[in-house]
Amino acid sequence: MPLSPDQIAEIEAARATPRLTLRAVSEGMESHLYKAYPVLDHGLVRVIDYMGDDAAIVQAARVSYGAGTKHVQNDEGLIRYLMRHWHSTPFEMCEIKLHIKLPVFVARQWIRHRTANVNEYSARYSILDREFYIPEPAQLAAQSVVNNQGRGEVLQGEEAARVLEMLKRDAATSYDHYEEMLSQEGQQGLARELARMNLPMNIYTQWYWKVDLHNLFHFLRLRADSHAQYEIRVYAEEMCRLVKDWVPLAYGAFEDYRMGGATLSAKALAVLKRRLAGEAVDQESSGMSKGEWREFIEVLG
Amino acid sequence: MPLSPDQIAEIEAARATPRLTLRAVSEGMESHLYKAYPVLDHGLVRVIDYMGDDAAIVQAARVSYGAGTKHVQNDEGLIRYLMRHWHSTPFEMCEIKLHIKLPVFVARQWIRHRTANVNEYSARYSILDREFYIPEPAQLAAQSVVNNQGRGEVLQGEEAARVLEMLKRDAATSYDHYEEMLSQEGQQGLARELARMNLPMNIYTQWYWKVDLHNLFHFLRLRADSHAQYEIRVYAEEMCRLVKDWVPLAYGAFEDYRMGGATLSAKALAVLKRRLAGEAVDQESSGMSKGEWREFIEVLG
Amino acid sequence: MPLSPDQIAEIEAARATPRLTLRAVSEGMESHLYKAYPVLDHGLVRVIDYMGDDAAIVQAARVSYGAGTKHVQNDEGLIRYLMRHWHSTPFEMCEIKLHIKLPVFVARQWIRHRTANVNEYSARYSILDREFYIPEPAQLAAQSVVNNQGRGEVLQGEEAARVLEMLKRDAATSYDHYEEMLSQEGQQGLARELARMNLPMNIYTQWYWKVDLHNLFHFLRLRADSHAQYEIRVYAEEMCRLVKDWVPLAYGAFEDYRMGGATLSAKALAVLKRRLAGEAVDQESSGMSKGEWREFIEVLG
Amino acid sequence: MPLSPDQIAEIEAARATPRLTLRAVSEGMESHLYKAYPVLDHGLVRVIDYMGDDAAIVQAARVSYGAGTKHVQNDEGLIRYLMRHWHSTPFEMCEIKLHIKLPVFVARQWIRHRTANVNEYSARYSILDREFYIPEPAQLAAQSVVNNQGRGEVLQGEEAARVLEMLKRDAATSYDHYEEMLSQEGQQGLARELARMNLPMNIYTQWYWKVDLHNLFHFLRLRADSHAQYEIRVYAEEMCRLVKDWVPLAYGAFEDYRMGGATLSAKALAVLKRRLAGEAVDQESSGMSKGEWREFIEVLG
Repeated sequence: MPLSPDQIAEIEAARATPRLTLRAVSEGMESHLYKAYPVLDHGLVRVIDYMGDDAAIVQAARVSYGAGTKHVQNDEGLIRYLMRHWHSTPFEMCEIKLHIKLPVFVARQWIRHRTANVNEYSARYSILDREFYIPEPAQLAAQSVVNNQGRGEVLQGEEAARVLEMLKRDAATSYDHYEEMLSQEGQQGLARELARMNLPMNIYTQWYWKVDLHNLFHFLRLRADSHAQYEIRVYAEEMCRLVKDWVPLAYGAFEDYRMGGATLSAKALAVLKRRLAGEAVDQESSGMSKGEWREFIEVLG
Repeated sequence: MPLSPDQIAEIEAARATPRLTLRAVSEGMESHLYKAYPVLDHGLVRVIDYMGDDAAIVQAARVSYGAGTKHVQNDEGLIRYLMRHWHSTPFEMCEIKLHIKLPVFVARQWIRHRTANVNEYSARYSILDREFYIPEPAQLAAQSVVNNQGRGEVLQGEEAARVLEMLKRDAATSYDHYEEMLSQEGQQGLARELARMNLPMNIYTQWYWKVDLHNLFHFLRLRADSHAQYEIRVYAEEMCRLVKDWVPLAYGAFEDYRMGGATLSAKALAVLKRRLAGEAVDQESSGMSKGEWREFIEVLG
Repeated sequence: MPLSPDQIAEIEAARATPRLTLRAVSEGMESHLYKAYPVLDHGLVRVIDYMGDDAAIVQAARVSYGAGTKHVQNDEGLIRYLMRHWHSTPFEMCEIKLHIKLPVFVARQWIRHRTANVNEYSARYSILDREFYIPEPAQLAAQSVVNNQGRGEVLQGEEAARVLEMLKRDAATSYDHYEEMLSQEGQQGLARELARMNLPMNIYTQWYWKVDLHNLFHFLRLRADSHAQYEIRVYAEEMCRLVKDWVPLAYGAFEDYRMGGATLSAKALAVLKRRLAGEAVDQESSGMSKGEWREFIEVLG
Repeated sequence: MPLSPDQIAEIEAARATPRLTLRAVSEGMESHLYKAYPVLDHGLVRVIDYMGDDAAIVQAARVSYGAGTKHVQNDEGLIRYLMRHWHSTPFEMCEIKLHIKLPVFVARQWIRHRTANVNEYSARYSILDREFYIPEPAQLAAQSVVNNQGRGEVLQGEEAARVLEMLKRDAATSYDHYEEMLSQEGQQGLARELARMNLPMNIYTQWYWKVDLHNLFHFLRLRADSHAQYEIRVYAEEMCRLVKDWVPLAYGAFEDYRMGGATLSAKALAVLKRRLAGEAVDQESSGMSKGEWREFIEVLG
């Protein structure tokens, strides 16, 4: 997403004048503030504001647990303890506000995470720009044959070309007609709240999205996961990079216990104990269904 | 929205076999259960389930306020008192589950109400039907010249015809290409999670939407309001009709205090007192801005 | 908690007159409706209403995933799949309303679960009854020496007697004074909203608590866990029994994947793979802290 | 609440070292950060962190409404417009984190506002201090004879003395016994999670409370209202003072439209129109109940 000179100037102006504050400051995050990190062909992620840092998580935990926590553990140990034991409230004490530009079909998946604050660009009030997501050839994948909600192999040759051509042409035609319907030259011009319905779901929208760190981690666990749709995963991955610089200790604990961890069922634990005791267990003797067994093997081999 | 014979049979089957329950029953709501009430050209509203009735609101209030409430007031008086004094928790004790079929651009507005539970049809997993919202001629309105997010006069003649033609043609073309991209005849077939991005926002989606009565009233106040976009207002109006039969006392209080009421500012109250004392007040002497004054006059003349 | 004859009559009346409904009915839950199940010395759990059953979870999932789900799996398999993959929205489609009577210090822990609706008896408006939680001797435990928020051995002999005597006497004195302050005989009588502050936190309060099944499972996982405080755990266990009769398939999946399962970190998974490959791993070579290692051993031996 | 020298030193240290930030800064709020403002006899309100300022509200609104809003209105006009039309999302873009010390019976009322993040001092984990709320003589009021949940005249003479004596003595006795039960000298010592139940509800607890500006305004409207209980109202009033310095434009709009405004029912509006047209209307001809009429007269005379 090439920024316009105006946008670049606006970002530079916002970064030009640091001010004094008594609040907690995360140096790692200050280095990212306002900068536009490109995602997909026209999307972006920008940090607009944040509240708190690793120390704020520790401080909130110490309100809860009192002086006892001061001696026992260092900050990293305490943060890892909180994450391991699902103590979510200290992580809720950090907050981030992001500016996201994203295709509408991604926005519709994103918004299912309800515990966040959102201000979206209103196509009822204003006119959308002519910007559509057109996948890179490497992302133009066939329907998975094993997973109803996944992708298989990348399309090749003529099929890929046909798809790209259709996506581009339909986007262009829809937008041309959007403009024609809105136009007030020689006609009244259709209401914006109606004209927008002609636009396809790969058009870009944008919003401010504000969320606390606990709910952000929940979002990232689901959306930075390898099973998430590529077009939302790339946003999640960009956000992971930012969060790592913002609250490195919390992010480390998140990586170990959530992203890299796994939840095993009572049945799976029973199988593991049998295997650790030297027994060979297969799907039939495991008590698991074929699907569960396959997922179990993926996790532990 | 003409239902298919299968759908009609399904609804009739669901309504054919009443069962015994010890729970609170609202006869008014039972008469609506499962029935598909058409909205727009292909949309619908259906009640799938509900919890509670007017008496449940009263009962919950009496848990809070104890025996004292038993003598003082009848049910209607108590419900009106609760509504007037913004006691929201007794209304939260009722719950409704609706099946809604609606255009995507309406769904995007709807989902901004976050305090509800949603299961939406997944176009990542399944294939959407060829159904698009095409406005009635009477709804094909120009952009308002006074309100950035509103409609003005209805489009006439050729302009209206051109708009309808564009909406219909682009929907048809987009859907044709959606099918072509998905097709696995002689090609791999694009992943559903990608192909869906070509569809315009007047395509229909559907979901189960579950909400408590307090949050439903909040939704209805905003969306059944005359300033709401027509395409969501018709859903809200249909839901008002259902809620009225479900909890007639609560709905009556809602109509009087919320839908028909108005919130006046401190400035507006001061002006009213002056006017009631016989003074003539105009915008300049009111202390209100022009916009505020115009809205104040709309409310009270 | 011995019910008064009035309360017994009220429950019998509520259960006496089944009515016809077209809604989903859970026979298992109907058998519990309104009945008061005792918890602790004066507490209770009662189901006042519910919405949905196992089939409603399946039905909501099929709205999302379309016809594809109809063929592949039976209801139990689908419910287990949803639970395993953290698909929370279908479980949110079920709702339960409970009447709970509980000590204030338990209520304060309970209310930290925010995604629920609550109507609590108001001591500002009404007068609380003279009912206090006094632990059974077997529950009168010493502070744990290993866990800052846990119990150790049961107190014995004179110490136990002293504690019980203090708890009983202070409760009685506080309540006597509460009544004296409120009394309007020969004096004005202190406002109820002030007098209540003299009461200790083992006094009983009561509320209606309404929650969806997904959030209820989250509550039960934390509060029916062996590390939860006994006085809230007994409520959670009673609720588990009710939920099992309400939605047996969902409860079965919950037991296997949540209550009986465990979340392992990336480090723990790495250790497991090494052990499964025949390597002996101890805490030092595991990369885990002592606390993590101890918890890991508890799970897998 | 006299702070300890340690606490004073901690606050001074936190305020001693301003750091540079690129984030939005509210000078008004910086002057309050970390300072402990006393409330009641041992309570306090402290701002620990904040996100955003008046300009952040405007900026978020402009994401939604696009460039159009840039020309039409100045910041104050836009903020007033948003408040008047219940556009809540821009106000949600500001966040505040407070440290509050408050009696438990106030905390129980406070926590009913669910849309906030809380870390409370854990009496399961740590030992509470010997600090109890004992009302000032001027706050020792009788039960209201007109309002079930309100106060009447201030208690006088011996009655007042008796009440104060009881409150003080019971608090002291309960705390003495709390300490005796916990003591490990010559005995095992009761678990903290049990001993706490002996403490009365005027003991002080403390928490970090984080909330967005929209939900904070909702809290303040209800709790700074003259009908709120005095002991929570003084916290709300202190917070109003802080918010006014943080976001002066938003606070001004809140004062005019929420705190000083009133919501009138359809019936009340109809009566007003008749009165403005010169008609004399009394309760009987108003269609309102006696209670509604009395409240209506309170608002408009």
